[in-house]
Amino acid sequence: VSSSSKALEVDCLVIGAGPVGLFQVFELGLVGVHAHVIDALPAPGGQCLALYPDKPIYDIPATPACTGRELVARLLQQAAPFNPSFHFNQQVLSVQPQPDGQFAVHTSAGTAFVTKTIVIAAGVGAFVPRRLPLDGLAAFEDHQVFHQPPEDVTNLTNQRVVIVGDGDLALECALAITQSGAARSVTLMHRRDEFKAAPAVIEVIQQLRTTGQLRFLAAQITGLVTTTERIIALQVVTTDGAASTLELDTLFVLMGLAPKLGPIAEWGLDMARKQLAVNTAQFESSTPGIFAVGDVNTYPGKKKLIVCGFHEATLAAYGVAQRVFPGQTIPFEYTTTSPRLHRALGRVT
Amino acid sequence: VSSSSKALEVDCLVIGAGPVGLFQVFELGLVGVHAHVIDALPAPGGQCLALYPDKPIYDIPATPACTGRELVARLLQQAAPFNPSFHFNQQVLSVQPQPDGQFAVHTSAGTAFVTKTIVIAAGVGAFVPRRLPLDGLAAFEDHQVFHQPPEDVTNLTNQRVVIVGDGDLALECALAITQSGAARSVTLMHRRDEFKAAPAVIEVIQQLRTTGQLRFLAAQITGLVTTTERIIALQVVTTDGAASTLELDTLFVLMGLAPKLGPIAEWGLDMARKQLAVNTAQFESSTPGIFAVGDVNTYPGKKKLIVCGFHEATLAAYGVAQRVFPGQTIPFEYTTTSPRLHRALGRVT
Repeated sequence: VSSSSKALEVDCLVIGAGPVGLFQVFELGLVGVHAHVIDALPAPGGQCLALYPDKPIYDIPATPACTGRELVARLLQQAAPFNPSFHFNQQVLSVQPQPDGQFAVHTSAGTAFVTKTIVIAAGVGAFVPRRLPLDGLAAFEDHQVFHQPPEDVTNLTNQRVVIVGDGDLALECALAITQSGAARSVTLMHRRDEFKAAPAVIEVIQQLRTTGQLRFLAAQITGLVTTTERIIALQVVTTDGAASTLELDTLFVLMGLAPKLGPIAEWGLDMARKQLAVNTAQFESSTPGIFAVGDVNTYPGKKKLIVCGFHEATLAAYGVAQRVFPGQTIPFEYTTTSPRLHRALGRVT
Repeated sequence: VSSSSKALEVDCLVIGAGPVGLFQVFELGLVGVHAHVIDALPAPGGQCLALYPDKPIYDIPATPACTGRELVARLLQQAAPFNPSFHFNQQVLSVQPQPDGQFAVHTSAGTAFVTKTIVIAAGVGAFVPRRLPLDGLAAFEDHQVFHQPPEDVTNLTNQRVVIVGDGDLALECALAITQSGAARSVTLMHRRDEFKAAPAVIEVIQQLRTTGQLRFLAAQITGLVTTTERIIALQVVTTDGAASTLELDTLFVLMGLAPKLGPIAEWGLDMARKQLAVNTAQFESSTPGIFAVGDVNTYPGKKKLIVCGFHEATLAAYGVAQRVFPGQTIPFEYTTTSPRLHRALGRVT
């Protein structure tokens, strides 16, 4: 591996900074293991923050009610004494077992690790923008095809722009580009003439349709017309069944986020219906040294609940510690009574 | 069973009102099962309140620090929407499987149940007063031998009283009896001349020893001198190795509380070193319909941690529900999004 000389050597790599990954950091700290945490998102919280930051959760034990945001804040506070090293905005691309039993790990940001253990706490996967299922489209990503709104609309001067989507992000993008006046034309596309966005945003969109500044097309994209270098047009079928083409320069696909397990599925671990099979003693996968906790794993009786992930992370920490400290007895102590844990937690005894 | 006509017919009996038993009530509520809870203590909280009511616990997930008392209060609040029926101050004496698959249960308070399921959340057992390991002593309990201080010291008028113990309870009892002046003599016994009590209490005890109002004896009790009806004297060995006898009328054994699994050990369930063997899919014991969660159970990887008990209670609730609602699909829903659960929890949606 060309970058192995620069690889970070670590004891444990936690993949996923959702609630279970954060509690994993805490439990690893209790048994003396420092954790590095990788997440595809730019901040901790995972699905909890992505999907229900302000909605209450009622089944966290001893917390009768808290929002997703509060839950994440509390778990970060609890893990803070163990100073986890976070690596955000990147996905793990490859995991290669090494002859010495460790794992070489590379991420999409170019970070390289050599780690003794891995705990996969990836939930249902990284939340990534939904893609259009069109052959050949990926080749034009970041040139003509984008999955986030433009940072600077003036880059679109004199272009024919198409935006696909029915939510706030798509409508607000269409609005901003139209109102900037930079583009030659703006077309908003969705398979039905219905939107799932804030009423005020929908109202402005409808006004722009009436005045002709914005075109709406109820259609599905069925193919691409391309040269080797560019997309020239989209092949579309409108709701009345008629096929046509739609010429364009730039395409924004803003159809929301969807979880994607991503490269983990190709690591060669035992899987059952997109879940990683684990034992229930230490939540270790079919590869010794790789553990899986939370919604990503499966075993008889499994329920996809945060409370179960907390338990799984607790037992996995002991499995990790056994591998990080071979031949040593891993201490089992209570946080209420152990002076060692009080020191580790920064609590005066 | 003579009292079967009066037996309470219930869906689920939870044995133990400690943290895991209380969270069991909550998880049962989420799947639509109402719980009756039995505990040997006079109030909920179990070991948590008995051993560390005011000491902080640091490893409850998303609760960076809380005392045992706070933990119990929060779990009671969380379970409150499901109105558990508590039966305090009693231990389960017998569990008899019935031909229809239910269980007849009798408690030490004379309460009788017929229940579809049982969840044992008894921790390391009921906390009962430590006994002196002396053959024949039990026969005199509640007549001459007591495991709690007297409610009315005037009952001890003109008696020779011996108190065994080195803690607050023993010293305060010795103090109260001595200062009442009712008894003919008061002897405090412990195997060493050392006390584990509040300094102020120890100071008064030492003053009473100096004035001769209270006698202290550093000795161990090795046997009893009895008639068929009464204890006449204790056989003791003092710290210098000398054997003697100590005449007495009333003995208070106040050596603190110790956990005792009690009659559960005699129910015929599979046990391993005083723990109940369970599966990890639903934490069911070797007897279908009887589940065990928290410190009382064992399985590969088991750690005696509250966080693990919370998970066990969660999965056990589904096992209980399957038996309470045979042939029905048990709903799996999230408290954040389910209108049914919002109604059940008394939260407006």
